[in-house]
Amino acid sequence: MEEEEEIGTPNIPEIDSEELLSLIQKGDAKAITEVFETVPTIDIAEAADGFEPKDLIFIFRNVDSNYTADFFEELSQDTKESLIRAMTDKELVELINAQAADDMADTVGDMPANLASRVLRAADKDMRKDINALLKYKDGTAGALMTTEYIEMLDSTTVSKAIEEIRAKGKDAETVYTIFVRNRLRQFVGTAGLDDLIFAKADETLDDIMDQDVVSCTTQTDQEEVAQMFRRYDLTAMAVLNADQRLVGVITVDDAVDVMAEEANEDLARMTMMEPSEKPYMQMTAWENARKCIPWLIALLVLGTFTTLVLNRLEERPIFHALLILTSFVPALMDTGGNAGGQTTGLMIRGLAVDEFGPKDVGKILFKELRSALIVAIFVAGFAFLWVTIEQYTGIVSMGDLSNTGDPTNPLNFAGKTIWNGQCWYGEFASHALKFSALVSVTMFASIVAAKMIGTLLPMGAAAIKKDPALLSQPMLTTIMDATILVIYFGVACAFFPLYV
Amino acid sequence: MEEEEEIGTPNIPEIDSEELLSLIQKGDAKAITEVFETVPTIDIAEAADGFEPKDLIFIFRNVDSNYTADFFEELSQDTKESLIRAMTDKELVELINAQAADDMADTVGDMPANLASRVLRAADKDMRKDINALLKYKDGTAGALMTTEYIEMLDSTTVSKAIEEIRAKGKDAETVYTIFVRNRLRQFVGTAGLDDLIFAKADETLDDIMDQDVVSCTTQTDQEEVAQMFRRYDLTAMAVLNADQRLVGVITVDDAVDVMAEEANEDLARMTMMEPSEKPYMQMTAWENARKCIPWLIALLVLGTFTTLVLNRLEERPIFHALLILTSFVPALMDTGGNAGGQTTGLMIRGLAVDEFGPKDVGKILFKELRSALIVAIFVAGFAFLWVTIEQYTGIVSMGDLSNTGDPTNPLNFAGKTIWNGQCWYGEFASHALKFSALVSVTMFASIVAAKMIGTLLPMGAAAIKKDPALLSQPMLTTIMDATILVIYFGVACAFFPLYV
Repeated sequence: MEEEEEIGTPNIPEIDSEELLSLIQKGDAKAITEVFETVPTIDIAEAADGFEPKDLIFIFRNVDSNYTADFFEELSQDTKESLIRAMTDKELVELINAQAADDMADTVGDMPANLASRVLRAADKDMRKDINALLKYKDGTAGALMTTEYIEMLDSTTVSKAIEEIRAKGKDAETVYTIFVRNRLRQFVGTAGLDDLIFAKADETLDDIMDQDVVSCTTQTDQEEVAQMFRRYDLTAMAVLNADQRLVGVITVDDAVDVMAEEANEDLARMTMMEPSEKPYMQMTAWENARKCIPWLIALLVLGTFTTLVLNRLEERPIFHALLILTSFVPALMDTGGNAGGQTTGLMIRGLAVDEFGPKDVGKILFKELRSALIVAIFVAGFAFLWVTIEQYTGIVSMGDLSNTGDPTNPLNFAGKTIWNGQCWYGEFASHALKFSALVSVTMFASIVAAKMIGTLLPMGAAAIKKDPALLSQPMLTTIMDATILVIYFGVACAFFPLYV
Repeated sequence: MEEEEEIGTPNIPEIDSEELLSLIQKGDAKAITEVFETVPTIDIAEAADGFEPKDLIFIFRNVDSNYTADFFEELSQDTKESLIRAMTDKELVELINAQAADDMADTVGDMPANLASRVLRAADKDMRKDINALLKYKDGTAGALMTTEYIEMLDSTTVSKAIEEIRAKGKDAETVYTIFVRNRLRQFVGTAGLDDLIFAKADETLDDIMDQDVVSCTTQTDQEEVAQMFRRYDLTAMAVLNADQRLVGVITVDDAVDVMAEEANEDLARMTMMEPSEKPYMQMTAWENARKCIPWLIALLVLGTFTTLVLNRLEERPIFHALLILTSFVPALMDTGGNAGGQTTGLMIRGLAVDEFGPKDVGKILFKELRSALIVAIFVAGFAFLWVTIEQYTGIVSMGDLSNTGDPTNPLNFAGKTIWNGQCWYGEFASHALKFSALVSVTMFASIVAAKMIGTLLPMGAAAIKKDPALLSQPMLTTIMDATILVIYFGVACAFFPLYV
C-alpha cells in the first residue's frame, strides 16, 4: 500500500509550526515571504494558529497584504481576537480594510461587543456599511453567506467598457469571473462571464451577450438549498436578490462548498445522536466534546424507559419464566428491527436533504418501501429461521431448564432436567426447536416491515412540520420499534406456545 | 411557515414533463428552443427522461447543439443508451463530438460493448483518443474524474498572444478561466487566471503573471482527497499530473462538488448499514433497494449471535431467575453503550474523511476521548442512578416475583408474594432498590467509557489498514459492545447481590 500511496499523493508544499516560528524568531522576513509564495496560505495559518500575538504581528509587518488578508481570515476566532487586541490602531485599520466584508462580518459577529466596536471603528465607511448590512442576516441564510463585493454593471454597457471597468476595480471583487447585469430599474437581469467578454466583439453590449436563464435566490433562502443549487446547476457564483428583484449580494462557489461540508457534518452528527459542532474536532476541548454527547444519551435513556417497562411487564408472564430462551433473542430482534428502520431513515434523510423528494411524495415512497421491505423481510426472516435452528442444533443457545415450570405434563420436561443441548434432536424436541425458530423468524418478518414503514413516516413527518428529519427520526424510531418488537414477539410466542402462557 | 418559505424560495424557471411532451408532439420547435433558453438544462433533462427516443430526437434535431450537449449529459444512462440506439449514424457523430470527453468516457464505460464500440466509431480521432485515455483510469481516482479539454500554454507566451489563443480555441475547453502553464520540458509549472490576463500588460509573459504556488494531484489520487483539496484551498480547477510532472488532465470544481455529495452519501449509507448506491433513490427499483439492505442485516444477525450466546448462558445462572428485573434493563444498557460508542465512531469517521487527523494521531485522540468519556459517563451514569430509582419507586418497573427463588431466608421474600410496586419503600426494600440503581449506574459508567474507547480504536484501526472506517466500525462496535456490556453487568450484579448468585 505504501507505494501506491506515494503515487497517489497530491503535490502540496508544506510548512510546520516549529520551522515557521524559528523563522519569525530569527526575524527572517525574506524567508517568511518565500514561505507565503510557495505554501498555501491556509496551511501557514494552521501552522501559525496559537502563536503569540507579537510573533503573528511580525508576519503582518513583513508580508505583502495580498497574502496576510487571506492568512488572517484562516486563523481561528480566538487567535484573531488576541491578534486584534495586540495590534496598534494603524495596523488594525490596514488589516480590516484588506479583508473581504463577508468574512469580516462573520468574525465580528462572533466577537465580544467591545472588540467588535473597535473593529468597526477601524473599518472605513464602505467596509463598515457592508459589515453592518451583512450582520443583520440570520445565520444559515443566503444573506449571511453572501458577499457584497461583486461587479455589477448596467445592461447597456459595451464589452470594451466592461473590460475597462473590470481592470479599474476588479481586484476588490470576490469574483471577477462573473459580471452581474442590471437594467435601468436597478433590477437584476442576468450574468455575463469573463469568457463571454473575451469571446465577444468590443461594441456588443452586456445585454447582447449575457445569460438570462439565471438561477438566483433571495436573502432568506436556506443555505442548504443554496448549496444544492450550486451542485445541481454547476454554478460558480449566484445572485442574491431582495424582494424588489434587486441584487444585494453574491454567493461564490467556495462558500457553497463549505456549506456542503458543514451540512454533511451535521447530518452525520445527528445520525450518531450528537449535537453538531462548528468547531473542528481537534479544536474542541474534552468538556465541549462531552457536552455534545450528554443530552442525547440522557434523552435516549429516558425514551428507553418505555422499552424497559414493556419488557419488565412481559417478564412477569409465565411464558418468560418457562422459556428463558425467549429473552436471549430480544437483543438480536431489536438490533435487526433498528437496523432495518435505520436504513430506510437514512435514505429518507438523504433524499429530503438533497431535495430529491418531499413530504408530498409520501404515498409513492411508502408504497415503494413497502415492496422493498417485503423483499428484505422474506430474505432476512428466511435466513433467521435457518440460523436460529442451527444455533439450537449446535447448542449455541439452549431452551433453558424447562423443568422449572414444574409442570409434569410438559412434553419437554424429562425427569426434571434439561437434556437439550444439541444432544437430542428428534420428536417433540425437534418440533419445539423448529417452532421456536419460526417464532423468531415471524417476529423478524413483522418487525422489518413495521420498521421500514415507521422509518419512512418519521422523517417525512418531521419534514412536513419543517423540522430537521435527522434530528428526530433515529431516536424516535429506536424507541417505537423496541416496544413494538417486544409486543409482536410476545404475541406470536403466546400463539406458538400456548402451553406456557 | 408558509409565508417564510415563499420569501426564501429561490428563483428558478420550471417545466414539467407533460408540458414538454405536448410541445414535442405538437412539433413546436420554437417553443422548445425558448424552454431551453430559460429553464436550466438539467431540469429539462429530468422532465424529459424516459420519453420515447423519437420524441427526444425531435429535441436534438431542433435545438442548438450548445444546449443539447448538456441536455444529453444530464439524461440517465438507460435513456442515453436507447437514444443512441435510435439515432442515425450522422446524428450520432454530431452528438458524440459535441460532448465533453470526460462525461462521454463515463457514459461509454457503463455501456454494453456493442453500443460502446458504435459510439467510439462515431467519435472523431481526438475525441476517441481522449475517451480511450480516460477509460483506463480506475473509478474513484483523479484520472477518472479529470477532463482532457483544457487550455495549456508555454510559459513564454505573452498575454496578448494568450488572449488571442483563448479566443481561437477556448470554447472547447471545460474551463477557460484557468490557463495551465508548462515549461520547455513540458512540465507543469503554474496557472494563470483569466483575470490575471485582464489585469496584466499585453507584453508580459505567462511566466511573469502566473501563480507558482499551485496545488496539484496525480492521476492516482483518491477522488475524496481531491474533493477535500478543492474545499480546503478554495480551488476552481486543479491540475492532474503524471509521474513525469506533466499535465495530463484538469479537474473542475463542479466535478469536485459532485464527488463531495457522493462521498457524503456513501458515509451516510454506511453509517446506516447499507450498501451505498450510485443511483438516486427515485430511480432505484424496490428490488435494487432491497438488495442494498439485505447483506448488512444478515451479517449483523450473524454477528449478533455472540450476544445471544452470552445472554443465553447468563440466563441460566440463578441470579437471572431470581432478579428478573436484571433482564428488563439489558436493552437500555445496550442502547446507551451503542449510542455512546456511535457518537465517537461518527466523530472519528468524519475527522478521518476530511483528513483532520489520521491513524498516527491515535494516542492523542484516545486520551482526549478518554477524558471526554469520563465526563459523559459521570453525568449519564449519575442520571441513570436517579432515573432507575424513580422507575422503581413509581412502580414503572418492579423487581419481579422474588419469591420464586424459593429461599425463605431471602429478605425480600415476604410471605411468598411480591409487595414491591412502589407501595412499600423502606428498610431492606429501599436498600435493595438503591443497590439495583447503583448496579445499572455502575454498568453504564463502565460501558460508556469502554464504548468510547472501542469507538475510537475501531475506525482508527480500519484507517490504519486502509479500509473505509465507516464500513467496519459501526457493526463491529455493536457486536463487541453488546457482549461486553452483558459481561460487565453480570459481574457487577454478582458483586452487588451475592445472595442470589
